[in-house]
Amino acid sequence: MRPSGRDVREMRPVSIETDVTRHAEGSCLIRCGDTHVLCTASIDERVPPWMKNSGLGWVTAEYGMLPRATHSRMQREAKKGQSGRTQEIQRLIGRSLRAAVDRSALGERQITVDCDVIQADGGTRCASITGGWVALRLAVNKLMKAGMISSDPLTDHVAAVSCGIYAGQPVLDLDYPEDSEAGVDGNFVMTGGRRLIEVQMSAEGATYSRDQMNTLLDLADAGVGTLVGAQKAALG
Amino acid sequence: MRPSGRDVREMRPVSIETDVTRHAEGSCLIRCGDTHVLCTASIDERVPPWMKNSGLGWVTAEYGMLPRATHSRMQREAKKGQSGRTQEIQRLIGRSLRAAVDRSALGERQITVDCDVIQADGGTRCASITGGWVALRLAVNKLMKAGMISSDPLTDHVAAVSCGIYAGQPVLDLDYPEDSEAGVDGNFVMTGGRRLIEVQMSAEGATYSRDQMNTLLDLADAGVGTLVGAQKAALG
Amino acid sequence: MRPSGRDVREMRPVSIETDVTRHAEGSCLIRCGDTHVLCTASIDERVPPWMKNSGLGWVTAEYGMLPRATHSRMQREAKKGQSGRTQEIQRLIGRSLRAAVDRSALGERQITVDCDVIQADGGTRCASITGGWVALRLAVNKLMKAGMISSDPLTDHVAAVSCGIYAGQPVLDLDYPEDSEAGVDGNFVMTGGRRLIEVQMSAEGATYSRDQMNTLLDLADAGVGTLVGAQKAALG
Amino acid sequence: MRPSGRDVREMRPVSIETDVTRHAEGSCLIRCGDTHVLCTASIDERVPPWMKNSGLGWVTAEYGMLPRATHSRMQREAKKGQSGRTQEIQRLIGRSLRAAVDRSALGERQITVDCDVIQADGGTRCASITGGWVALRLAVNKLMKAGMISSDPLTDHVAAVSCGIYAGQPVLDLDYPEDSEAGVDGNFVMTGGRRLIEVQMSAEGATYSRDQMNTLLDLADAGVGTLVGAQKAALG
Amino acid sequence: MRPSGRDVREMRPVSIETDVTRHAEGSCLIRCGDTHVLCTASIDERVPPWMKNSGLGWVTAEYGMLPRATHSRMQREAKKGQSGRTQEIQRLIGRSLRAAVDRSALGERQITVDCDVIQADGGTRCASITGGWVALRLAVNKLMKAGMISSDPLTDHVAAVSCGIYAGQPVLDLDYPEDSEAGVDGNFVMTGGRRLIEVQMSAEGATYSRDQMNTLLDLADAGVGTLVGAQKAALG
Amino acid sequence: MRPSGRDVREMRPVSIETDVTRHAEGSCLIRCGDTHVLCTASIDERVPPWMKNSGLGWVTAEYGMLPRATHSRMQREAKKGQSGRTQEIQRLIGRSLRAAVDRSALGERQITVDCDVIQADGGTRCASITGGWVALRLAVNKLMKAGMISSDPLTDHVAAVSCGIYAGQPVLDLDYPEDSEAGVDGNFVMTGGRRLIEVQMSAEGATYSRDQMNTLLDLADAGVGTLVGAQKAALG
Repeated sequence: MRPSGRDVREMRPVSIETDVTRHAEGSCLIRCGDTHVLCTASIDERVPPWMKNSGLGWVTAEYGMLPRATHSRMQREAKKGQSGRTQEIQRLIGRSLRAAVDRSALGERQITVDCDVIQADGGTRCASITGGWVALRLAVNKLMKAGMISSDPLTDHVAAVSCGIYAGQPVLDLDYPEDSEAGVDGNFVMTGGRRLIEVQMSAEGATYSRDQMNTLLDLADAGVGTLVGAQKAALG
Repeated sequence: MRPSGRDVREMRPVSIETDVTRHAEGSCLIRCGDTHVLCTASIDERVPPWMKNSGLGWVTAEYGMLPRATHSRMQREAKKGQSGRTQEIQRLIGRSLRAAVDRSALGERQITVDCDVIQADGGTRCASITGGWVALRLAVNKLMKAGMISSDPLTDHVAAVSCGIYAGQPVLDLDYPEDSEAGVDGNFVMTGGRRLIEVQMSAEGATYSRDQMNTLLDLADAGVGTLVGAQKAALG
Repeated sequence: MRPSGRDVREMRPVSIETDVTRHAEGSCLIRCGDTHVLCTASIDERVPPWMKNSGLGWVTAEYGMLPRATHSRMQREAKKGQSGRTQEIQRLIGRSLRAAVDRSALGERQITVDCDVIQADGGTRCASITGGWVALRLAVNKLMKAGMISSDPLTDHVAAVSCGIYAGQPVLDLDYPEDSEAGVDGNFVMTGGRRLIEVQMSAEGATYSRDQMNTLLDLADAGVGTLVGAQKAALG
Repeated sequence: MRPSGRDVREMRPVSIETDVTRHAEGSCLIRCGDTHVLCTASIDERVPPWMKNSGLGWVTAEYGMLPRATHSRMQREAKKGQSGRTQEIQRLIGRSLRAAVDRSALGERQITVDCDVIQADGGTRCASITGGWVALRLAVNKLMKAGMISSDPLTDHVAAVSCGIYAGQPVLDLDYPEDSEAGVDGNFVMTGGRRLIEVQMSAEGATYSRDQMNTLLDLADAGVGTLVGAQKAALG
Repeated sequence: MRPSGRDVREMRPVSIETDVTRHAEGSCLIRCGDTHVLCTASIDERVPPWMKNSGLGWVTAEYGMLPRATHSRMQREAKKGQSGRTQEIQRLIGRSLRAAVDRSALGERQITVDCDVIQADGGTRCASITGGWVALRLAVNKLMKAGMISSDPLTDHVAAVSCGIYAGQPVLDLDYPEDSEAGVDGNFVMTGGRRLIEVQMSAEGATYSRDQMNTLLDLADAGVGTLVGAQKAALG
Repeated sequence: MRPSGRDVREMRPVSIETDVTRHAEGSCLIRCGDTHVLCTASIDERVPPWMKNSGLGWVTAEYGMLPRATHSRMQREAKKGQSGRTQEIQRLIGRSLRAAVDRSALGERQITVDCDVIQADGGTRCASITGGWVALRLAVNKLMKAGMISSDPLTDHVAAVSCGIYAGQPVLDLDYPEDSEAGVDGNFVMTGGRRLIEVQMSAEGATYSRDQMNTLLDLADAGVGTLVGAQKAALG
């Protein structure tokens, strides 16, 4: 019944390849099926001006898509400016990652996580969060190895998955054909300990009930478990 | 324990004054405590180009804040462009209102709902949705009275309220002092029949559990009931 | 002969309601017939960089229109940037208010007067000046009560009215139907003592003579008298 | 008493050199003392979309300054966008020229008058209007010679001069040192028949009386007479 | 003597992996040492409006860099707009590719070649041209296989390499450490038949002689030979 | 055979008029046939922030065209921002002039050379470089006369000319009708001693051989000789 033939509780294959670029302090290429996102974490020893002398660090994120990451070519945002959708997504990624950061332990420095979609097939914001956390983890590891921070500022894993109601059925990990048809569409960000960080569920044409919401949350819980496993495997 | 002295389940006083501007097809001024939003609905007999000859209508929303709606003056967006936050909010308002619109019954025309915050004290996006629906209702009534549409395209009320965990306690209808301190912050959009349209819950520093999420949903359910009552009273 | 049935020397009813918003140091809602403008004055203890250590203060103004203040909806300036018309108007408001400010008595601080048109029916720039002055007066009063300035920096009232030649006849206080048809259109800014601050008279299709100019100035003089009376009444 | 040693009623030397560029349908270089403006008129056989099939033509103007036209170098507007001042000036030039155009006789075409300040010493907007009219006249002559229009759409000359109160004295044709110190500053646009097109008088620090206004108008009347003479001489 | 230990006539290892993304009609990942560029070719059956009904096709290019492609993170162009450097590079890529396109044989369609730098170590514009041609070749192959065009519009290979004078010595294929120190720096675009398409040689601090220019051209000639070989190998 | 009737080795008449504007530290109007460019050099005693305390000066350039410098009117860049072409040209002018500047002898100050095209007939970037150098020379002379710098920072003349292959023949100094038809088009920047600073040769439709390139370089060498002579004559 799913276009991909997957079971309703079946995720797409996930792979996370680390240290894929030479310059970034942390990096990975995450593949969730045909959605591929390159994530890099860049350390800047300066924080934004309004945060100076606070003793606290900052984690922020930016998101982009290559023009031909999608089925038909999209106009380059460098030419027209960032869309509302892009800004909304990068705010979500940054907020999600910060929810498991001890900013005091990080110290007064900023880490920028860039998530650039090389190929898109639905779920790019969730893949960005899951891969972005791995890049962040690697950059923080580098700071710790260098003795620049003493206690680990990352309090837990952070991962995200989408679920939705497709053709009347709750399904896990929507791909693009499902996402574009789903009546209800949710993104769920959780910690490794499965605490909630962000829930965003939108009706697209059809409203939904509390029961349906709970079913999707159960699916997401299982999906995040799989993703956290993939993060651990990638980090060795 | 709440800065305002309200009980945890107590909403701020709500008032909705209709037909407050002379030109708009529908309008109201909604006051949720000290948050005041002017909502207008404008009918355009043309739809966006990519929707032509679809037989379907469209409802969209825009959001703004007067520069001194807030405690300290903010720079005017006409000078610097719409922020990511503004775009995110107006996308939410439009999506929420459309969830209870039969676009086919509306016919090929567009209604733009403008929500301009005159004074802000937290919860401006929720007040915009609740008031925006009243303006939309009034504009649609005008179309029906004029015989331009025959069956009502609005399938139910739409209203929204925020809830959060403030000082460790789940509370209903956050005002600004609560909102700026809350560890978890959610916006809940529902229909009159209390079906869910959009749930957005963010951890701000602290993560949250499924139980806490359910408690906030219960609070929101009650709050939306009150707001729908206010909508009905205003519409007479 | 006038669309509103008014006599050529008759102004629209004027009302000025003060302290209409909670956050601004000074505020009023001015209504000149169906033209309604919300004016707020915001005090900033810093002046622009190029004015630092001059010992002088600054008064500036910004102007905006809600998208549906007009008969048909206009595009929001936050989306397209401020038009030349908007910039011209806000430069006029600022210049006019400064003409009756002793910048040395104000001291090194800036007051920004925001004029946002809630509903438009012609004469919005004049209403903005007249209402803006009331907001400025209230903000300055607050500074004086707080002992932050000792001598009053406002040297006189400032008010403005439009006049024009409509259907061949000089008329006072143009409303929108008149404004859009007038062959000559002028804005007159004066002090309470009826000294001139700014005169702007434009031919729109028809040129005009010195005599006609003088007739309009006489009308404006009377109109400003009425407006200054309304300012005094509002301030109690 | 004037920095230039001129008498209060004495204008700067005016010269208007025509046909100074090869491509434009009409062009001149106007020199008012050390203020030099290159004016070109470009004919476009299409009008703006909203004017199509109206049978009416349009005259519009644009204004710019070379970066080193002024005492110290200004940032290039191509880099930062047109300032409010630039937009205000070009709106004034266009409005002034249109006041003496029979748009029906012009026929459905647009003439764009570009006024680019090569060197500035005060009064650039007035020089632009006076020189812009000559460029417009030459372009219209070309249309008439080519038989594209049969009756002359230019109903009279248009010229402009500034006057102000400098060091307490009304003076004609302000140069930059005067302009930057003047307590009252006015721009006066008139026809050859000395009908008024636009009057703009601003207090800069000092307010002014009706009598002072009339004195400046008298000065301006004489100045425009001189400028119209220079236009006639240049056109041969 | 070269930082990399390479001989003056030695290029970095080149690899071209084709069909690396799922959606684009043609794509490759070109690696010239540590410079990695993802090139995609997107077919659009419409040409720009000004080319309609000409019977001719168009090839254009766009260029971008991921923010952390470089040693230290650069600001995202989606946030600040395309720099002059970016525009100059993408104009060069498009012009170079078009030099070996028979636009009539291509027919009235447009192919956009996107070159996105994943990792940078000097020579990104040359790698973009060399890889971009492979993506273009693959997209054109697809059109030919589909019978949409009958005769091959690509008249020859196009490839590019940089050469410069580093530490007083002419060297082939500058990497970043060489590029940032070179006194003379040139980019050479040639066809497979080693005809010249574009030569750009700039003095950076030191001027150069005709002899030096010829030495660099000889080096480039050899380098392009190697690159064309790599293109052929990649295309099988 | 050339549209102008010129011999293939014949340049257009060149004239350079110095000190044409009152405010700039150095200025000239260069005329290469019907291409007229106003060049000014402006001294700023501050360097850009990232160059502070380096002891080195900076020379930069900006380029613009009046809207009606061309056959048909172009849109003003102040309205739409600088095009890629404009940015490419001004980067070339600045780079070319800097190649013959001893930045240490200049001392920590910046000179901005503005090149504004008054009338265009091909070769505007070359005329800008040739005229820009004269303006720069005059500004540096002023600094030396004032004793602000002791040893001459200009190490040689800088001049530029275009050559191309028109109707199958190599020709010197392309005018617009030639430039728009040329199959190969090159810009050559050299010093007075005929060392090369920048060579840019582009195929426009037709590729070219090394022999053709050398022929164009020979033509350019002669042309630059003529231009340097004109510079010397103008400087007296």
